[in-house]
Amino acid sequence: MPGNSFGHSFRITTWGESHGKALGVVVDGVPAGLTLSEADVQKDLDRRRPGQSEVSTPRSESDSVEILSGVLDGVTTGMPVSMLVWNKNAKSSAYDYIKDIPRPGHADQSYSERYGIRDHRGGGRSSGRETIGRVAGGAVARKLLSMAGIEVFAHVIELGGVKARSLSFDEIRSNVDSNVVRCADPGAAEKMLEQVNAARLEGDSIGGVVEIIATGVPAGLGEPVFGKLDADIAGAMMGIGAVKGVEIGAGFECSGMKGSQMNDPYVLDDGQVTPATNHAGGITGGISTGMPVICRIAVKPTPSISKTQQSVDTASMKEIDVEIHGRHDPTIPPRMVPVAESMMALVLVDHMIGSGLIGPASLLK
Amino acid sequence: MPGNSFGHSFRITTWGESHGKALGVVVDGVPAGLTLSEADVQKDLDRRRPGQSEVSTPRSESDSVEILSGVLDGVTTGMPVSMLVWNKNAKSSAYDYIKDIPRPGHADQSYSERYGIRDHRGGGRSSGRETIGRVAGGAVARKLLSMAGIEVFAHVIELGGVKARSLSFDEIRSNVDSNVVRCADPGAAEKMLEQVNAARLEGDSIGGVVEIIATGVPAGLGEPVFGKLDADIAGAMMGIGAVKGVEIGAGFECSGMKGSQMNDPYVLDDGQVTPATNHAGGITGGISTGMPVICRIAVKPTPSISKTQQSVDTASMKEIDVEIHGRHDPTIPPRMVPVAESMMALVLVDHMIGSGLIGPASLLK
Amino acid sequence: MPGNSFGHSFRITTWGESHGKALGVVVDGVPAGLTLSEADVQKDLDRRRPGQSEVSTPRSESDSVEILSGVLDGVTTGMPVSMLVWNKNAKSSAYDYIKDIPRPGHADQSYSERYGIRDHRGGGRSSGRETIGRVAGGAVARKLLSMAGIEVFAHVIELGGVKARSLSFDEIRSNVDSNVVRCADPGAAEKMLEQVNAARLEGDSIGGVVEIIATGVPAGLGEPVFGKLDADIAGAMMGIGAVKGVEIGAGFECSGMKGSQMNDPYVLDDGQVTPATNHAGGITGGISTGMPVICRIAVKPTPSISKTQQSVDTASMKEIDVEIHGRHDPTIPPRMVPVAESMMALVLVDHMIGSGLIGPASLLK
Amino acid sequence: MPGNSFGHSFRITTWGESHGKALGVVVDGVPAGLTLSEADVQKDLDRRRPGQSEVSTPRSESDSVEILSGVLDGVTTGMPVSMLVWNKNAKSSAYDYIKDIPRPGHADQSYSERYGIRDHRGGGRSSGRETIGRVAGGAVARKLLSMAGIEVFAHVIELGGVKARSLSFDEIRSNVDSNVVRCADPGAAEKMLEQVNAARLEGDSIGGVVEIIATGVPAGLGEPVFGKLDADIAGAMMGIGAVKGVEIGAGFECSGMKGSQMNDPYVLDDGQVTPATNHAGGITGGISTGMPVICRIAVKPTPSISKTQQSVDTASMKEIDVEIHGRHDPTIPPRMVPVAESMMALVLVDHMIGSGLIGPASLLK
Repeated sequence: MPGNSFGHSFRITTWGESHGKALGVVVDGVPAGLTLSEADVQKDLDRRRPGQSEVSTPRSESDSVEILSGVLDGVTTGMPVSMLVWNKNAKSSAYDYIKDIPRPGHADQSYSERYGIRDHRGGGRSSGRETIGRVAGGAVARKLLSMAGIEVFAHVIELGGVKARSLSFDEIRSNVDSNVVRCADPGAAEKMLEQVNAARLEGDSIGGVVEIIATGVPAGLGEPVFGKLDADIAGAMMGIGAVKGVEIGAGFECSGMKGSQMNDPYVLDDGQVTPATNHAGGITGGISTGMPVICRIAVKPTPSISKTQQSVDTASMKEIDVEIHGRHDPTIPPRMVPVAESMMALVLVDHMIGSGLIGPASLLK
Repeated sequence: MPGNSFGHSFRITTWGESHGKALGVVVDGVPAGLTLSEADVQKDLDRRRPGQSEVSTPRSESDSVEILSGVLDGVTTGMPVSMLVWNKNAKSSAYDYIKDIPRPGHADQSYSERYGIRDHRGGGRSSGRETIGRVAGGAVARKLLSMAGIEVFAHVIELGGVKARSLSFDEIRSNVDSNVVRCADPGAAEKMLEQVNAARLEGDSIGGVVEIIATGVPAGLGEPVFGKLDADIAGAMMGIGAVKGVEIGAGFECSGMKGSQMNDPYVLDDGQVTPATNHAGGITGGISTGMPVICRIAVKPTPSISKTQQSVDTASMKEIDVEIHGRHDPTIPPRMVPVAESMMALVLVDHMIGSGLIGPASLLK
Repeated sequence: MPGNSFGHSFRITTWGESHGKALGVVVDGVPAGLTLSEADVQKDLDRRRPGQSEVSTPRSESDSVEILSGVLDGVTTGMPVSMLVWNKNAKSSAYDYIKDIPRPGHADQSYSERYGIRDHRGGGRSSGRETIGRVAGGAVARKLLSMAGIEVFAHVIELGGVKARSLSFDEIRSNVDSNVVRCADPGAAEKMLEQVNAARLEGDSIGGVVEIIATGVPAGLGEPVFGKLDADIAGAMMGIGAVKGVEIGAGFECSGMKGSQMNDPYVLDDGQVTPATNHAGGITGGISTGMPVICRIAVKPTPSISKTQQSVDTASMKEIDVEIHGRHDPTIPPRMVPVAESMMALVLVDHMIGSGLIGPASLLK
Repeated sequence: MPGNSFGHSFRITTWGESHGKALGVVVDGVPAGLTLSEADVQKDLDRRRPGQSEVSTPRSESDSVEILSGVLDGVTTGMPVSMLVWNKNAKSSAYDYIKDIPRPGHADQSYSERYGIRDHRGGGRSSGRETIGRVAGGAVARKLLSMAGIEVFAHVIELGGVKARSLSFDEIRSNVDSNVVRCADPGAAEKMLEQVNAARLEGDSIGGVVEIIATGVPAGLGEPVFGKLDADIAGAMMGIGAVKGVEIGAGFECSGMKGSQMNDPYVLDDGQVTPATNHAGGITGGISTGMPVICRIAVKPTPSISKTQQSVDTASMKEIDVEIHGRHDPTIPPRMVPVAESMMALVLVDHMIGSGLIGPASLLK
């Protein structure tokens, strides 16, 4: 089962390794007639790009995208859109000392078990750089969604134990990019940053929670039993490296609620049957309700830490102590914001196109 | 996008409605050579069947399975295994009064938005009875897995706010079916049952958490980027009705942990590189580590409650109060145990067959 | 790779063996709002049914279809439509003598190689009875297509060396079911029937050619590189048992033509750019042109013959002579007509739904 | 339905246009452990490359392949192999005069109907240059197959009405690349070349037939009903531009044969049950028999001809005469040889990997 494609009606196929020549994506199923330029994609890649602040790895990459196909005179033709980014600042020799030592918390050992061979250079394909293809494909998805009135945005709501207060959608949109931890609550953001800096000084790392919101999602999106919208979102989010939990709406809180608390009553709003509350997070029975889709993901602390850890040298088959140096982020959630937005956008556009709600007819008039 | 099939190498296609003639499943990709009888499947269906205790709906169905194809002289032939269960105790007229009233917390309104038409009889296909096909298909998956040394079991770890204490795998296996709430901690089980009964008396319902464990999963299962084992599990679990959250290993707790706490160090165990702890829940980088796979799901309270709720009569387009009578479970997690086990088994067998680790060669010698 | 499902947007999953309990199909992706009854399906099954004339097997089966799900008050709900037919006239003991003897021209030996186990009773799943599921699913497809103005029909154009003269679409539609060989040229039909009877008397069988035509197919159906309409048709047709060749439009004749003969010039017809001729058979570059889609398939002579043939007794591993008795058709093309129509309909409806040209919106107004 | 991917277990996704920046392919599902270099792929691309003789277009492209991912130290890692070729000799302005004129026999008009937008530069994605991705992916497939003892080769057996005599496999392999028409019968090759030259002088083009053979295919490959080996081959072959017919084994000849002639009797060969003849072309019931797989395809004459043809100017909506100049092949079959080999290889490797017969286990020891 090839494992590098995502989506049914709008499908991305990503490729590339952290220290290979390049990374990229082929986007298939893009309707003809969409205005698309490299700047549209670069904007999202720039939010994902490393080296932007003290909370991310110092590896410096411009990550300039090239569109190689599928666009003629600035408009998509319906043909696959192939995009790539060249790797420029890879320092592979920095990883030689761990060639035979699986790093705790990383995919090193599971890749060795799966493939027999492992690209140890910067984590190979299991590196966070793999998400370049997702974000580039997600940028095309987001542009299509925006034409249908759907907006996707995410923010960090918890980092190193510090929680953001409850925020309005407007506050989130306005504030999220105003600080390096991408928390829309400025007070919490400050404390989060302290946690990041403290962890880095200790040679340690911290985890957090990211919330992803989609507004403008029409009611009636999702399949009945196995292509449920929430199932697809859960699969998409858990498939991002470092994510260990996903919840929709009330999420894990629902386990302690009663039916009378959890159920969203229906009211008439402007002649439409509408839920009065949104504990469901915009999805019931796997199908969208017309309310905002709300999802939260638990992100583990960066596995690369310079504190001493125990591992095994698989060449000599001896237990050893290891300190991970290389260049890495002390915390992942801030950089996961654009990636999680991309995955949400990819799920939504797949269902929108599959349902005929986005298509050439809507673009070419 | 047809939404009633699950799996790539081992694929189930389920069909049927709560009050239709029958419900069933076609299981495709079953390797030839597996000994399979109706008793093998009935055993799991009996654990899912309603009417067994005060914690489940009084609807009485024997749910006797018939195998219609794919088995010759008690052995699978490699051809699709078609199975069905006839509906016998459907009382459709009991649902006439809500024909035009979407029940809060149910899929009624989202189905109407999606399809324009809705089978209101007992929830139609969005009913929990839909899981009959999943459990029947899961029974075949579990039999295949057991021949490869993989065991899947689940238990209720939280219900109505009552939490079970930490338990060994042996305790879970021994105790889970010894009480009607399927909690392996007898003390907690008693308190959970009190919560269920209290909720029923109030005309209300309660939620909870189910934990699913798979032992014997070999290292190296899962695809690198989009067919990750944890992504597939998350999608499978979130796709069960009433599930609002999924976590693997440390799950949401990881957001407050440091890397030095979360990372599982490697040790040599019997000459094998093995994680010393299992915060990862048996999966890193989307690929199994050889440790037990551990997953927890948040299950919302049953949406059907007899307490008065607000909804809209879509025939007259007026807001009205509604009390849901019909026959329903006061809490879902105990009955979700065999369903969640089935989904875990379906994901695992799909990856095992896809990787060539289960196949005719292993059965026909 | 499970091999019993066909289609992407409209997907059938068939199951059942010649001498099992039943055969059936699950049809997923049927848009909500289609009026559908068992009579709609039975009509096509009756054309496929055996025992109707001297050119088909004397096995007598009523093949009465039951719809088990997906239809409420005579209208589809968008849920999977499960249908089955019970086997009644199976005489399995008649096949005991060939339990260990692969019949020349049949799938017996290749199934043994593939699965290790083989259902020898009437050919098991490799029997022509397997097509019941295809025809039942095809009937739903055809009803959907007819609402979009697309008609599919097929006829026998060659049998036992006798060729039908060229016929108009009207002649084909009027005459095809007026004789047992399903040839719309009455003169040729008479000679074909003589060939069938002569072959049967000799204990032999004959092959032929079936032509399938689809009218009303809109221009613009098909994917650019790998989901081409002609590729999908070719795969669908070659996947019918006994088919050894497929051609579209001019087909194999094009190999001797010049570009100036083969190319269809464009003219203006009623303000539309339209091909003046149809050597392309309605498809260029894998995408429909708006002209009728025309396909021909080569059907081999029935492999079951009573003439002595050489085979091997795989129990004793000795070469032996074998005469195939059982009940079988002396020629296949007449009974293949409804099967080939079904496969064409399944391909077309898949593309129509995938392109958003058939959907609930078009049915539910 | 995205239409630029092929295969299930071994999947290629191709992209690029005739006059775009580049063309390429992402190959997913390549087992880890295969020795792979750019030279392995270039060898096949060189056989496909234009400008090599008087029978192909004078467009001069080196078509040098770059491998961008999935290979470490000359060995595949199990990660997707991304490859590209830069376009260098595109002369887009040469196509300006047909920007609004659909060329007869080409996909111009059907693409316009499908997408609303059309890349007129050299045919865009409907150009034969699209097959670069197929051949590059096919080269990887062929290398994997060769390690399992499977060899795929093709040759031109008919061109412009001239037919090659019957040839042994050894003759085909030895002679096929010894002349520019890729016919292994030197006498016929000479006459074919005369036909090509005559057609070119007339401003016309000719069609032909290519035969594709696979030896070493193990018995038991293929799925029972819808993933049949012959169905997949037929779909793969008909999906190559300009192919209008596909046949396996006896093919269309079987329509005039009797069962006693067509059936391949079984004999014991070295203790194995083996067909004594191969009218089946190596496949019965959709599953391989162990005999060579034999397939023939009908290739239409090149649609680009300089003879005057009728078309419509879609800007002015007036009928006009058009002569196609540009650079094009006077006949396609010789250049189709490596493309058809690639598609056969892609189908076979997909089934071999899907059946577990090719995998990392077989490569990494």
